[in-house]
Amino acid sequence: MRLYDLASTIGGKLLADDHDAQITGAASLEEAGNGDVTYLDSTKFIGLAEKTRATAVIVAESINIPGKNLITVENPKLGFARAIEALLPYLRPATGGGISSEAFIGEGVELGEDVGIAPSAHLESGVKIGDRTAIYPGVYLGRNVSVGSDCVLFPNAVVMDGCRIGARVTLHAGSVIGSDGFGYVTDSGRHHKIPQVGIVVIEDDVEIGANSTVDRATVGATVIGSGTKLDNLIQVAHNVKIGSGCLLASQVGIAGSSTLGDYVMFGGQVGVADHVSIGDRVMVGAQSGIAKDVQSGLVVSGSPTFAHRDWIRANLVFQRLPDVEKRLRALEKTLDGLKTDKDKSGEKT
Amino acid sequence: MRLYDLASTIGGKLLADDHDAQITGAASLEEAGNGDVTYLDSTKFIGLAEKTRATAVIVAESINIPGKNLITVENPKLGFARAIEALLPYLRPATGGGISSEAFIGEGVELGEDVGIAPSAHLESGVKIGDRTAIYPGVYLGRNVSVGSDCVLFPNAVVMDGCRIGARVTLHAGSVIGSDGFGYVTDSGRHHKIPQVGIVVIEDDVEIGANSTVDRATVGATVIGSGTKLDNLIQVAHNVKIGSGCLLASQVGIAGSSTLGDYVMFGGQVGVADHVSIGDRVMVGAQSGIAKDVQSGLVVSGSPTFAHRDWIRANLVFQRLPDVEKRLRALEKTLDGLKTDKDKSGEKT
Amino acid sequence: MRLYDLASTIGGKLLADDHDAQITGAASLEEAGNGDVTYLDSTKFIGLAEKTRATAVIVAESINIPGKNLITVENPKLGFARAIEALLPYLRPATGGGISSEAFIGEGVELGEDVGIAPSAHLESGVKIGDRTAIYPGVYLGRNVSVGSDCVLFPNAVVMDGCRIGARVTLHAGSVIGSDGFGYVTDSGRHHKIPQVGIVVIEDDVEIGANSTVDRATVGATVIGSGTKLDNLIQVAHNVKIGSGCLLASQVGIAGSSTLGDYVMFGGQVGVADHVSIGDRVMVGAQSGIAKDVQSGLVVSGSPTFAHRDWIRANLVFQRLPDVEKRLRALEKTLDGLKTDKDKSGEKT
Repeated sequence: MRLYDLASTIGGKLLADDHDAQITGAASLEEAGNGDVTYLDSTKFIGLAEKTRATAVIVAESINIPGKNLITVENPKLGFARAIEALLPYLRPATGGGISSEAFIGEGVELGEDVGIAPSAHLESGVKIGDRTAIYPGVYLGRNVSVGSDCVLFPNAVVMDGCRIGARVTLHAGSVIGSDGFGYVTDSGRHHKIPQVGIVVIEDDVEIGANSTVDRATVGATVIGSGTKLDNLIQVAHNVKIGSGCLLASQVGIAGSSTLGDYVMFGGQVGVADHVSIGDRVMVGAQSGIAKDVQSGLVVSGSPTFAHRDWIRANLVFQRLPDVEKRLRALEKTLDGLKTDKDKSGEKT
Repeated sequence: MRLYDLASTIGGKLLADDHDAQITGAASLEEAGNGDVTYLDSTKFIGLAEKTRATAVIVAESINIPGKNLITVENPKLGFARAIEALLPYLRPATGGGISSEAFIGEGVELGEDVGIAPSAHLESGVKIGDRTAIYPGVYLGRNVSVGSDCVLFPNAVVMDGCRIGARVTLHAGSVIGSDGFGYVTDSGRHHKIPQVGIVVIEDDVEIGANSTVDRATVGATVIGSGTKLDNLIQVAHNVKIGSGCLLASQVGIAGSSTLGDYVMFGGQVGVADHVSIGDRVMVGAQSGIAKDVQSGLVVSGSPTFAHRDWIRANLVFQRLPDVEKRLRALEKTLDGLKTDKDKSGEKT
Repeated sequence: MRLYDLASTIGGKLLADDHDAQITGAASLEEAGNGDVTYLDSTKFIGLAEKTRATAVIVAESINIPGKNLITVENPKLGFARAIEALLPYLRPATGGGISSEAFIGEGVELGEDVGIAPSAHLESGVKIGDRTAIYPGVYLGRNVSVGSDCVLFPNAVVMDGCRIGARVTLHAGSVIGSDGFGYVTDSGRHHKIPQVGIVVIEDDVEIGANSTVDRATVGATVIGSGTKLDNLIQVAHNVKIGSGCLLASQVGIAGSSTLGDYVMFGGQVGVADHVSIGDRVMVGAQSGIAKDVQSGLVVSGSPTFAHRDWIRANLVFQRLPDVEKRLRALEKTLDGLKTDKDKSGEKT
């Protein structure tokens, strides 16, 4: 692709000597070579950008890198994403365009236009699938599951009975939607199962990572709001409600009935206790443990969590604790000496 | 269902003006509406119970809520579980009652009465399945695996060669039983695999969560005791022995050869080191890390763990550590001042 | 097997009264009985070794246990591994030796000699499989995936389009290789997906645990180096590079673009932030959180990490923090008293 064409494709302005340079790939500042386009989205890395071997760099309008072919855009990372789309073939689902005779299609299943159903996929009775949705091999859809249009369900994803999946949703390989919530009532030393008869509702534009699990509600619904993205190996327990536009990193676990507002961001391995309410735009550091409500807009860390800034400072002291205790002991000794002196001088008088 | 009939079904006493009220659903105190039954199991929530729009509330015998239809029982949560069972249809396994010709059934497989085997399930040679057990699509059972009666193996669950599953066991979707333990011996820079030739024994009434993994023993057996319930995404390593009636929350990991007694309870994301012994009825706070033996009956938290009560107090001070160090510094300064004064006054004398 | 024959099979020297003793099994010091061989690899357990009921004990050359049949070798654990191999049948893959007509084999698939492909396995177009590799049921291999010789892909393992797997690699059940990296660029409140068009490269002699996930690179490759072993439920994010000979315990998570050197060892549940570089032979304690670069050879713990030895000491003080604060308060009070005295005596003068 000509550099000039790439710039217009991604909606950028070209500042370059060679409008006809051929762009054949995309890569990071460090890894890019001749023929690649790269991007710079923080002035922190301007040194790397000056040394990159890329043929062109996507930058913000305020940035200049002397001697480099530049494409200026408002959001360089977004520009780069569009460049990847334009340059590198993102393989369309292998299953597009056909219903395999080796798939199991139960009674009363309704399929939209241009649906792809792979061999060994299994659709129970009453399943509804929207237009252009691709179902990979080994996918299981329980009774009366509905899946919207333009979804991709990767191999071995499982959606249990009655759950509802919106439009443009991606379920990555091995993810499980609608497994039973972990609910028991213990009586005379026996854990009786509380029937889990609710469902899971996944709204539009959600992505669920590989091998993540979302449990059905005891009664009612576990909800994942529109535009929310879950990374791999995440656990969402029964009756959890997650708002819109959240980004949760890998191995996060959210216990029963907790709620997240909109645009919440979690680092990896964060845990949330049950029945906790987390406001909008809350940011949580990796490995944190949330034990009680967090108000909108806060940035928290630690287990249990408190203000992220204070957590950083507390940790610095934590690492010095043996020294802190030593200093405390020294003070005690000095003070004991002073008191003895005082007592002695008291005795003298 | 008439309120009167519901009360007798769950074995409760009806205290209500309207014995004929229709009950059509079950929900929490907050979410319940007209026609729903709900429950109150802690006086903490009595305020919510007074405001609930539910048509009836299941309560303990000591509780009165003026103006509400009440069903009194000994254990309100158990009563509610029974009400859900009575009111809401819990879908029976989709696979009940038939052996699919699309399943793979190896040589010498023995199937009990009324077994259901779904398409694309795979039973290797020598597998034995008890009465009324349901095997969903994509389930794999290795050679000589035995599964008891009344079990449900949800889609894509995997049980490797030789493992033994008791009666009334549920394996949720994507769970893996009998994968190799993580055992290597390093010699001249190479990690040689120690053959993992043991099995996994899962006793009766166990539930294993979605995408959880239980490794086979190196030699002997990894054991999950009767009535124990494991949540999703849990790791149980080789040669671990878990007692009866334990409840382990999501994302717990237990390293090799460790043992848990009976009725142990773990919060989410707890980790246990290898070769550790944990007694009966031990309770462990979420995200804790157990590095050495824990005696029966203790409640512990932290990483590494100590008494939960002390952990809470230590955390409160942790959050104040920058202040603690500041106060320490102030003391040092004051004391330096005092000593200088004293030295000066000493010089004077 | 005769004890004499076992000793030669594992390359050891026999020190025994009864060269003809029959050895029929292998077990740990505690669990071994008559007919078993066991091993001792640390003098710490010599008491157990003296009491073991095993018929023979594999030991280092420097060890003597009076009254026991001994096989001496350089590395007793390695000797034990070889004894298990010799004594206990490790079941060969159930799928060896045949291409099932119930498997899906796409166009242009190339299969080596003696490959086993089980029913309901799915090989997309362009897949290449090396000699003697076994593909279990429910395995999915995307377009143009290559898998080397002597590999075992256990049930429901998934390898997405274009990924490359070396020789002698084991993918345990439910593992997912080549799922999309977690990459978005947020613009006007929408998270746009950055196309993940890179691949995963898994080098020779790697083992990937059950239900672990390895994401494909955004561009370029996520790499797992030769001889590295990953336990169950591990997350490896896009563009991560892991060196050779690493051992990572269960539930570890490594965020995007981070690198590990060779022979790195992680305890369970360790988390690594993105863009972090970890040197060779680094050892990391369980549940640690690595937020910045770690130099080769260091042993670290904590979240965030610091020297393991210092972390142990800091934790001891952490557990005493309420007492530390109490002592601090006592000092403040004493000092206040002293100052008051001094002020008073000052007033007097």
